[in-house]
Amino acid sequence: MQRLHAKIRDIPDFPKPGIIFKDVTPLVKDPAALRLSVHQLLHPFLGREITAIAGMEARGFIFGSLVAWELGLPFVPLRKPGKLPYDVQSVSYDLEYGSAMLEIHIDSLDSGDRVLLIDDLLATGGTAKASCELIEKLGAKVEAIAFVIELDALGGRDKLHGYEVHSLLHY
Amino acid sequence: MQRLHAKIRDIPDFPKPGIIFKDVTPLVKDPAALRLSVHQLLHPFLGREITAIAGMEARGFIFGSLVAWELGLPFVPLRKPGKLPYDVQSVSYDLEYGSAMLEIHIDSLDSGDRVLLIDDLLATGGTAKASCELIEKLGAKVEAIAFVIELDALGGRDKLHGYEVHSLLHY
Repeated sequence: MQRLHAKIRDIPDFPKPGIIFKDVTPLVKDPAALRLSVHQLLHPFLGREITAIAGMEARGFIFGSLVAWELGLPFVPLRKPGKLPYDVQSVSYDLEYGSAMLEIHIDSLDSGDRVLLIDDLLATGGTAKASCELIEKLGAKVEAIAFVIELDALGGRDKLHGYEVHSLLHY
Repeated sequence: MQRLHAKIRDIPDFPKPGIIFKDVTPLVKDPAALRLSVHQLLHPFLGREITAIAGMEARGFIFGSLVAWELGLPFVPLRKPGKLPYDVQSVSYDLEYGSAMLEIHIDSLDSGDRVLLIDDLLATGGTAKASCELIEKLGAKVEAIAFVIELDALGGRDKLHGYEVHSLLHY
């Protein structure tokens, strides 16, 4: 994975002092590295019974739609409130300061769907946990969750206890 | 294009009364229709000298990254303010009420780049025009702009005068 690590850029003090942000834009700017990352993301699920790919706004739209494309599966966007125009299910979740909401179209999944959830980054796991709740509110099953990057020290994997979690790059 | 029209859902009174919103989520949920739309989007540019694909947050990330993937080209995200972590160029532009800003990483394009800009929707053209300005601020050239949907009555194409504009579906 050294080739992929080389495409993740550290940005000190973003979005606030003391945080080192992992910037994936060098990865999406490199077609060969992006192809490698997407193929690594979907590799554990080849031959598995996945029926849909869900991805979180906004960077999850890049990796999620590419995994869906390669697997020939539907892509389901999970969005911030007020962005999805049709009827939605919503869930609110706690952030370090305050809270956030996430929404899904009520007709985007069926009760038989087995969903692979994709995002670029697993940090505290709040957004991913909320995404799982949304998928389950529609009666679908979260088959697994795959991230490009996992920040091990933030304990997001613990918050996702009970779910199958894969990450390409650990920091 | 009837097959694609059938996958665009009208949402009356979204985001406000009197507006009929064109919802592309049924399109991205249908792998065959999505494949058709992406191949139609990129078809005019096969064999052309394009060196990068740019896409606007957030739905433009879906179509833009898929076009970039298929063409084997870099994908460059254009984002709302405060989202891109590295040094940025910014441009502000007028909306119906108030204004908005768009940003691009300063190292995302070089002066020799010839960029195909992708978004899902051409409405008034404000966001697309701002995106062209950002690309040109980095010294790159906007080779063309391609949209899935164009709302003809809103005059976005006039605002993009001087640019090559393609749209798959007209309403």
